[in-house]
Amino acid sequence: MGRVTERRRVVRVRGGAAGVRPDTLVAEEPLEIRLNGKPLAVTMRTPGDDFALAVGFLVSEGVLGATSDVRAVTYCEGATEDGANTYNVVNVQLAPGVPVPDITLERNVYTTSSCGLCGKASLDAVRTASRFPGLADDPVRVPAEVLGALPDRLREAQKVFDRTGGLHAAGLFSAEGELLDLREDVGRHNAVDKIVGRALQAGRLPLAGAVLLVSGRASFELAQKAVMAGVPVLAAVSAPSSLAVDLALETGLTLVGFLRGGDMNIYAGEHRIPLNGAGAEPGAGVGHGGA
Amino acid sequence: MGRVTERRRVVRVRGGAAGVRPDTLVAEEPLEIRLNGKPLAVTMRTPGDDFALAVGFLVSEGVLGATSDVRAVTYCEGATEDGANTYNVVNVQLAPGVPVPDITLERNVYTTSSCGLCGKASLDAVRTASRFPGLADDPVRVPAEVLGALPDRLREAQKVFDRTGGLHAAGLFSAEGELLDLREDVGRHNAVDKIVGRALQAGRLPLAGAVLLVSGRASFELAQKAVMAGVPVLAAVSAPSSLAVDLALETGLTLVGFLRGGDMNIYAGEHRIPLNGAGAEPGAGVGHGGA
Repeated sequence: MGRVTERRRVVRVRGGAAGVRPDTLVAEEPLEIRLNGKPLAVTMRTPGDDFALAVGFLVSEGVLGATSDVRAVTYCEGATEDGANTYNVVNVQLAPGVPVPDITLERNVYTTSSCGLCGKASLDAVRTASRFPGLADDPVRVPAEVLGALPDRLREAQKVFDRTGGLHAAGLFSAEGELLDLREDVGRHNAVDKIVGRALQAGRLPLAGAVLLVSGRASFELAQKAVMAGVPVLAAVSAPSSLAVDLALETGLTLVGFLRGGDMNIYAGEHRIPLNGAGAEPGAGVGHGGA
Repeated sequence: MGRVTERRRVVRVRGGAAGVRPDTLVAEEPLEIRLNGKPLAVTMRTPGDDFALAVGFLVSEGVLGATSDVRAVTYCEGATEDGANTYNVVNVQLAPGVPVPDITLERNVYTTSSCGLCGKASLDAVRTASRFPGLADDPVRVPAEVLGALPDRLREAQKVFDRTGGLHAAGLFSAEGELLDLREDVGRHNAVDKIVGRALQAGRLPLAGAVLLVSGRASFELAQKAVMAGVPVLAAVSAPSSLAVDLALETGLTLVGFLRGGDMNIYAGEHRIPLNGAGAEPGAGVGHGGA
C-alpha cells in the first residue's frame, strides 16, 4: 500500500535504436469507498492518502462538511476472497446524527459520476447541497502576479511528476501564494479529493480565502469539488469546459484557465484578481479593460 | 444537442493587460446511459456521437460484441421534469437473446468505474469477460516508423482541439498508418468509447490489426477498453500506469507510451513493433537490442 510509483521493464526507442531498461511508472489501483459499510463508489487512484481521498470524496458529494461528521475511517479487512487485506477498500463511518444519504442505484449513479442527469439539474443540486453557501461572498483577492507564479511553484514541488510524467497534481495555496498542500494522483479528481479530505481532517473546511490550482483542465467535476469545499478561486493550467464556467458563474466561484507564464483567461469572478502589472490603467481591475 | 463547442465571455490577461472577449470552450454535458430502460451509468461528455458512446461503453463492459446484439438505440423522451427531451439520456435496447447483466448496486459500482475491487480481480475479470480472447494471437506488425508518425497525423486531423485546447482525442489507425476514425471528447474514456461504438455500429468488431492512439495517458481503463474491443496495439502520447502495463502483459496487448517525435517506450508486446530505422542491427527487432 501507499506506493506512488512502481518499476516495470520497458523497451526504449530513441533515434531509431532500441534498448531495454527499467522504467518508473505511476502506480494505479482501485479504491472502493464504503459509507457506513455500504459500497458507494470505486475510483482508480494512486495509492496513498486513501483516508483523505475517501472523506474528500464525501465532501464533494455533500455527505461531510466538518471533521466531527466522521466517526472513523478504516481499511476493511477480509475484502478479498482469501481474506487478505488489499488496502483497496476504505469504510467511512459517520458520526451519530449525521444524515446518511439514501444509497439506491439511482443515487449511486448520481454520486459516482458527481453530476446530475442534466446540466441544469446538476447546477441546482450543487447550489442547494453545498455546506458552505457563502462562497460568493468570500472577500479574498489574489493579485494576478501572485496567481501567475503558482504553476511554477506547483511544478517545483512535484517530485513524482518529474519521475514518471504520469500524475495529475492539485495544489492548495494561500491568497499570498504560499503552498499549503500538494497532492498527486493518476486521476485528477482524486488529487483534488485528497486535498479536500486532508483539509477536512485538519478542521480547515470551508477553504475560505484559498486558491486551488490543478495541473490539467478544469472540468465541471473539479469546479463542483471546489464549490463543495468552499474554495473561492479555482485555477487550471489548461482549458475549462462550458459547464464548469456555468457553475462558476452561478455559485460565485472565480475560475481561471490557461494559467501560463503570468498570462491567464478569467472565466468568472474576475473581481477577485486585481491587476497591478504593466499595461493596466492605474487603479483598473481585471475585467474593466477594453478588448 | 451535438454542439462540440460553446462560446463564453472571458477576461484575457496577456503581459499584465486585461481585455474582454468571447472564447470558445469545449461543451460538456452529462449523458445517462440506460440498458433496457434501466439507468446504468452517467458520464460527463462532449455532446455528439451519443449513440456510439453508449454502445461503445457497453462493449467495454462486455455487454455488447456485435452489431446484432443491439435492437435499438434511442434518446429517452420526457427525461426532465417538464417532459422536455434534453438529449442527455440514451437507452440501449438489447436484441432478443442477448444476456442482460445483473444490474445491482454492486454490479453498478463495478461498471461505472470500469474496474473490479482490486487489481487482481479486475485483471481476471477482463481476461474472462472479453468477447475477443484471441488478442494475443493477432499477427499484426506496425513498424516503429509508421507508429512514430501517428501523433502528428492525429493532431493534424483535430480541428476542435486547436480551437479550444480542451479535448482529448482518440484515433484509430490501420497497421499502415491510415487514419480510420478520430473522435474527441472532454473525457478521454468517452473518446475511446465513441471509437469503439462506431466500430460496433459498422460491424467492424473485433478491431483486429488496428492501432488505437490516445492523446494523453494510458490508464488501466483505456487499456481495458482496447482489450475488450480486440485492439492489438494501444499507443499513448504520455505515460501509462502500472496497472495498464500489467493488463497489457497478461492479455497480449501491445502497449506504447511517450510516443513523441518517433521515439517511444514499449511496455508490452514489442514483437509487434519491428524496428527498421538507423541504429538497429540488421534484422533486429525492437526488444532484442542492448541497454
